[in-house]
Amino acid sequence: MGCALGGAHHETLDAALAALLPFAGPAQAGVIGRRERLDAPTAALLNGMSAHVLDFDDTHLRTLLHPSVPVASSLLALAEYRAQSGATLSGADFLHAFIVGVDVECRIANAIYPTHIEQWYITGTAGVFGAAAAVGRVLGLDAAGIVRAFGIAGTQAAGLREMAGTMCKSFVHGRAAQNGMLSAFMAQSGFTSSERVIEAPRGFARVLVGDCDLGVILEGLGERWELALNTYKPHACGVVAHPVIDGCLEARNKHGVAPAEIAAVTLRVHPLALKLTGIRAPRGGLESKWSLYHSAAVAFCDGVAGEEQYTDSRVFNPQVEAVRERVVAEADAGLRDDEAHVAVTLTDGRRIDIHIGHALGSVANPMSDGDLERKFIGLAGDTLPAGRVEQLIEQCWKIGTLTDVAQLARLAVP
Amino acid sequence: MGCALGGAHHETLDAALAALLPFAGPAQAGVIGRRERLDAPTAALLNGMSAHVLDFDDTHLRTLLHPSVPVASSLLALAEYRAQSGATLSGADFLHAFIVGVDVECRIANAIYPTHIEQWYITGTAGVFGAAAAVGRVLGLDAAGIVRAFGIAGTQAAGLREMAGTMCKSFVHGRAAQNGMLSAFMAQSGFTSSERVIEAPRGFARVLVGDCDLGVILEGLGERWELALNTYKPHACGVVAHPVIDGCLEARNKHGVAPAEIAAVTLRVHPLALKLTGIRAPRGGLESKWSLYHSAAVAFCDGVAGEEQYTDSRVFNPQVEAVRERVVAEADAGLRDDEAHVAVTLTDGRRIDIHIGHALGSVANPMSDGDLERKFIGLAGDTLPAGRVEQLIEQCWKIGTLTDVAQLARLAVP
Repeated sequence: MGCALGGAHHETLDAALAALLPFAGPAQAGVIGRRERLDAPTAALLNGMSAHVLDFDDTHLRTLLHPSVPVASSLLALAEYRAQSGATLSGADFLHAFIVGVDVECRIANAIYPTHIEQWYITGTAGVFGAAAAVGRVLGLDAAGIVRAFGIAGTQAAGLREMAGTMCKSFVHGRAAQNGMLSAFMAQSGFTSSERVIEAPRGFARVLVGDCDLGVILEGLGERWELALNTYKPHACGVVAHPVIDGCLEARNKHGVAPAEIAAVTLRVHPLALKLTGIRAPRGGLESKWSLYHSAAVAFCDGVAGEEQYTDSRVFNPQVEAVRERVVAEADAGLRDDEAHVAVTLTDGRRIDIHIGHALGSVANPMSDGDLERKFIGLAGDTLPAGRVEQLIEQCWKIGTLTDVAQLARLAVP
Repeated sequence: MGCALGGAHHETLDAALAALLPFAGPAQAGVIGRRERLDAPTAALLNGMSAHVLDFDDTHLRTLLHPSVPVASSLLALAEYRAQSGATLSGADFLHAFIVGVDVECRIANAIYPTHIEQWYITGTAGVFGAAAAVGRVLGLDAAGIVRAFGIAGTQAAGLREMAGTMCKSFVHGRAAQNGMLSAFMAQSGFTSSERVIEAPRGFARVLVGDCDLGVILEGLGERWELALNTYKPHACGVVAHPVIDGCLEARNKHGVAPAEIAAVTLRVHPLALKLTGIRAPRGGLESKWSLYHSAAVAFCDGVAGEEQYTDSRVFNPQVEAVRERVVAEADAGLRDDEAHVAVTLTDGRRIDIHIGHALGSVANPMSDGDLERKFIGLAGDTLPAGRVEQLIEQCWKIGTLTDVAQLARLAVP
């Protein structure tokens, strides 16, 4: 909700709305943080896009899937759609469907990670199953109906990692919400699909991944829940860059390192951090979220790595550029993916070595409730008045007791 | 147009419409052969689905892509949408965009065939580029805009071959029309994407195909046109089964073979025919289109392989089942894909050998204009009155001279 409010007026949303509004259906659901109302699946798409466009949303660290975008975006649009006919979706039913949807998408993601994510956006491809499961649960589909919904969803699974740094990244994430939602409705209408979309020889897993151990999907089903492994980001960029940012912030705040006195910065990181956030010279705000080098530079220059730090103006700021050019990074397969070493050499020859064991926001070192509220306020503050932000935070904390989840969406309209 | 009229009342369309109508946008475009009117992209989806659901539409034999579904469905919906604001799409402009769209999708298909089609529906994956190109052409996108449209389209490329025999097959074909169309509109609004969606290391070709020779895409660009290689099907099933059907029809019609006197049928076919239409015991009408064995059986029993022959009632007919069980098939890599040998052994011991050099409907042995008109009448006759069918045929033949292509869509409403 906070991320969607923060991303609601991003140029990505403006461009998408300009193209899609002339074709949109009846005013069934709202766009979080905006005044437009349109058909529920398109609202799910747009809310999924705004929730992800800042790359600031929640992450299932085991797979780097962003769980809420497909599932919460589709469920919230569904709640608004149902409210129109008086069939309200309660907070308890929302949470039940949300937990099921997240479990489905993350369990599928567990089986295909990490091979799959070198080429695909896993939130786009596995996420579509999560949205289908969550919406199918609310629609009351039986087992055969859920199977059909999974088939219809899986044959739409898409999202090329080549889109990094462009508007298409958040688009494929939002599409998972929209397409998964529509799959559940089509299954309800008797639309047929393969009954083995995941495991068949020409099914999702073999075609989009290759060989993988599908047994992982059912491990401990109903005993442990993937949602318990969900995490929140303190920084507005690719999560694998977070331990580096923590290290640079520590160098700045505890050791008083100023940008002008930096001679060199050497980062030692998990190999995936270089693979996913290895862009040396980002060409704009969206791309800078995938640059370890830029993340380190803004941490030193600004003392924070929020959404403001990943905009064109910070990317092309001379001071940021100067620090960014002094950063080098090397992969170390011996590190965990929430771990990093940061070595800073100063112009006077001094050297500072910092080790981050677990980045803030990791499972072992989570953000506090207070951290989350501050993050929410920072994201929502430009879109809603302060009183409304407080009200939304209060309602979100007690979502399990709400009689109609659609009221959250209504509170999110400026 | 004929295939869409024939498929307009298929249960696949009924199920899709039941799910999608509540979310559809303004009445901008019609569904061919039906009375519903809805937003143009959803109309493109549904017209793409009805045009393909009988597996009777045109085929680019070099790649087995079905060229018209993505391109004509999106262009016709666009023509209706534009007509609302008086910006009519002329027949000449429609044809120009159609030829460009078909060239784009078939050229991309040339580069990825045959590896790609073992796992994906090439009309779903390459077709989305064709729709983007055709609609982008009409919208007047510049080169940068077309590049963006290709990126937005390519990151949605999807459609698993696992869906064979289910409603999802025609769905992924129609999605190519809808998603490609929306990609062009999003590009027009400034939505950004990768500029190298096809050729990048994590782009379409590498991810959905593997290694392939992309140079093929530009071979003879602007000198020869892929549309000239388009073909029309005389039989309502997978095109690789067509030479076998021709052979069985010849055995029945020239040699008087009756179903009851068949002891055994041995088919010798191109390996792809077995791979794509190798279903031994189809479980229903849609699946039977992918059974060489069923195709041979109905040719012997009914003397025709039209849409009626690929329905549940023919699949479970005892006489058809009896013949189907007597058919065996073997692959012969020395044959062309439009070539087959059919050997029939009769209960009295006689043996008839037939060789089909080029199936009817292949590039070397095309259907005549008269054949096409008879096919059109057969498909449209249940949906429109005879006078209207004649009128539509006449208007379709002279499409290049129409001042507003939307009139074709209007004539196609019952």
